[in-house]
Amino acid sequence: MPPLSKKDSNGAVTRPVHSRTDTGASDWATDNEVEVDDKKQKAQSDFDKKKQTFITRAIWTLIMIGVFFGSIAAGHIYLIIIVTAVQIISFKEVIAISNVPSRARSLRFTKTLSWYFLGTTMYFLYGESVIYYFKHIVLIDRVLLPFATHHRFISFMLYVMGFVFFVASLQKGHYRFQFTQFAWTHMALYLIVVQAHFIMNNIFEGMIWFFLPVSLVITNDIFAYICGITFGKTQLIKLSPKKTVEGFVGAWICTVLLGFVLTNVLMRYSYFICPVNDLGANVFTGLHCTPNPVFLPHTYTLPFIPSPWTFLPQKITVAPMQFHILVMATFASLIAPFGGFFASGLKRTFNIKDFGDSIPGHGGMTDRMDCQFIMGFFAFMYYQSFIAVYKTSVGSVIETVITGLSAEEQIEVVRGLAKHLYNQGVVGNDVVEYLAKRLGEGVKR
Amino acid sequence: MPPLSKKDSNGAVTRPVHSRTDTGASDWATDNEVEVDDKKQKAQSDFDKKKQTFITRAIWTLIMIGVFFGSIAAGHIYLIIIVTAVQIISFKEVIAISNVPSRARSLRFTKTLSWYFLGTTMYFLYGESVIYYFKHIVLIDRVLLPFATHHRFISFMLYVMGFVFFVASLQKGHYRFQFTQFAWTHMALYLIVVQAHFIMNNIFEGMIWFFLPVSLVITNDIFAYICGITFGKTQLIKLSPKKTVEGFVGAWICTVLLGFVLTNVLMRYSYFICPVNDLGANVFTGLHCTPNPVFLPHTYTLPFIPSPWTFLPQKITVAPMQFHILVMATFASLIAPFGGFFASGLKRTFNIKDFGDSIPGHGGMTDRMDCQFIMGFFAFMYYQSFIAVYKTSVGSVIETVITGLSAEEQIEVVRGLAKHLYNQGVVGNDVVEYLAKRLGEGVKR
Repeated sequence: MPPLSKKDSNGAVTRPVHSRTDTGASDWATDNEVEVDDKKQKAQSDFDKKKQTFITRAIWTLIMIGVFFGSIAAGHIYLIIIVTAVQIISFKEVIAISNVPSRARSLRFTKTLSWYFLGTTMYFLYGESVIYYFKHIVLIDRVLLPFATHHRFISFMLYVMGFVFFVASLQKGHYRFQFTQFAWTHMALYLIVVQAHFIMNNIFEGMIWFFLPVSLVITNDIFAYICGITFGKTQLIKLSPKKTVEGFVGAWICTVLLGFVLTNVLMRYSYFICPVNDLGANVFTGLHCTPNPVFLPHTYTLPFIPSPWTFLPQKITVAPMQFHILVMATFASLIAPFGGFFASGLKRTFNIKDFGDSIPGHGGMTDRMDCQFIMGFFAFMYYQSFIAVYKTSVGSVIETVITGLSAEEQIEVVRGLAKHLYNQGVVGNDVVEYLAKRLGEGVKR
Repeated sequence: MPPLSKKDSNGAVTRPVHSRTDTGASDWATDNEVEVDDKKQKAQSDFDKKKQTFITRAIWTLIMIGVFFGSIAAGHIYLIIIVTAVQIISFKEVIAISNVPSRARSLRFTKTLSWYFLGTTMYFLYGESVIYYFKHIVLIDRVLLPFATHHRFISFMLYVMGFVFFVASLQKGHYRFQFTQFAWTHMALYLIVVQAHFIMNNIFEGMIWFFLPVSLVITNDIFAYICGITFGKTQLIKLSPKKTVEGFVGAWICTVLLGFVLTNVLMRYSYFICPVNDLGANVFTGLHCTPNPVFLPHTYTLPFIPSPWTFLPQKITVAPMQFHILVMATFASLIAPFGGFFASGLKRTFNIKDFGDSIPGHGGMTDRMDCQFIMGFFAFMYYQSFIAVYKTSVGSVIETVITGLSAEEQIEVVRGLAKHLYNQGVVGNDVVEYLAKRLGEGVKR
């Protein structure tokens, strides 16, 4: 989460800013002595200022690293709280940039409405997660049950109330401002809150699905800076003149390598690879589960080895996760930076340097998180599509059957499954026949 | 779908426009004869123009009514096609209003990108519906299966490609225009395409869930106009000066009454109340299903009858659907019009009279559909939350168990269900004991 380098300097070709200021001062040194003194003093105070900024930045970087690892150790709930705080601060920053204070003052409800929509969206998304991951608790609670079964309807009606209120609060002469705020709030909800929701789901699926994407983005950020100042020559994108092709490609290679190493280490700890089956877990209590097969070694036979390289092994044993991390590292290196470019473009559009000053020395929260949101969204989609298994549990199936089917249909399920188990050679035909006879009677009774 | 009255005249207090033009001409009649002749000629040509517009409008209203009932009779697939066409035309109209042609000309990809996002969103939403409603077909097809199991991931990557392309196409000096287009496209996708998706799901759930919401909105529109010109005095909302409280309340009462009558009629036809279990069905072939219990009469005991009214029956027998229609008619009357007010506000913001000229004599498609989108969304949420039952079928449970659980877990399900059936008194204890014994052996084998 806390990048050590400033985003804008991703592959910087220019020198650090304070040396440029020095050069600027010496260009004018021929004029007269007083002026030279002034310049020197100015350069000195500039340098002091930069130094102060650098120190603040370093301290806050350490604080962020501390909070990050601290909450990882403390448990999933603390991480959720951190992500929630990050999303609220980012939302605040993003809706603020399209705000025109003089306009907003004469319209009492504009800001309230943005926060109302944030509340509604969070109610909806958190509710979805809670219902999905804590079904076994929510569905047996008398008070919570109606909120769970009608969750989407309640959320929809909350949203509709906000919508009606927005329309009713439209004021002549302010239409354009109000509609812009409305559209902008929705963009912020979609870009920040919805994407942060997926980051939280990643935490529920297992610490590693949160830790890896976040680390890959930070790693890529740092290496883009290092590779950029070392080899950087060719400009990558007009939007950010300091970014270079060399920084981009170099960071990709480094991120993939670090991804391999990091995965190899994290895979060994069940605290990282287990989904949250106990919210009270922390790094000391640990977590226990049957590991997802992607973390277990698998032997692959290489299809073809060129004849001169016969010394190569014909088979390799590796955890499938090592292939998945390749895809994730590639996304973090080649696609996620576009989240940052998008944020840069927005800042240029509104003529601002940073989204805010939430983190001293670093600028706004959004400046630090711009690539994390899309990366977290990707990680979730990728996990759901290619990694998640056993989404069904015995408990959830029985719950579905008991709540959704009649007794006759339940019997049909039992008989159908027995038949299937017989077809698979798991049980003998006598079980099927017995059930056909006995359950037939059961229904009639 | 085709309202007989113009939206803006919902509760009109003013006279029809052409009579006002006449009055305007006669005010100036004292000046001189040539001018009077000019005015008369102008008034005459104005009148001819209005007459022509009225005829065009009437013809197109009839065409729309014809298409509407024609496609209802022809079958669900034709309705889906109509709704798809409506959403594409509305999307085109809405993205066009924020377009600045001179800007767009120098940026080649802005329009292409909006359409690309439309395509991606439609791919995602139609795919979701197809997978949900035609699981039994999609999941057993070798070619379709990977598209079904990775549907969300594929959609996400398609979207990300568009996002990356957008960022890469950002051009200096055009940032504000490009970001506005981006935000605007997303608003249109959300307000039109996502909501239209729910209208299509309503069609799949049964023709009545499409027909009732659409009819209620049109009915409300017409009665707001009739009640407005008959009793209208008090202005309702600043945004639309022609709308009156009397029109609003009168229309509500009429819509509720018409809702009762309409429901009473439609409930008798299985073609309307059955979900689509056969895509080839039309009004002649019909549809067959076990009706949802909301359509079956239910006897309610009145809790309290005031003593003077002992002639009232103590029990009433009515289909629960008659209560649900009360809620739907109320939403159509009190909330859905805000969709129209929202659209009016947008039109005022951009200084346009109509969203387009897609329907001759009626203006844009969006002008006709503004209240339908939110109503369709509501109908779907309400249906899912309070009406839908038996979402689980024996087939889908068995499918879940077979695909998601191991043989051991499947046996656990069978034993768990047998135990539950015994607890419910459906089967004897001997079945549970037999299964415990025989299935235990099964696993060991």
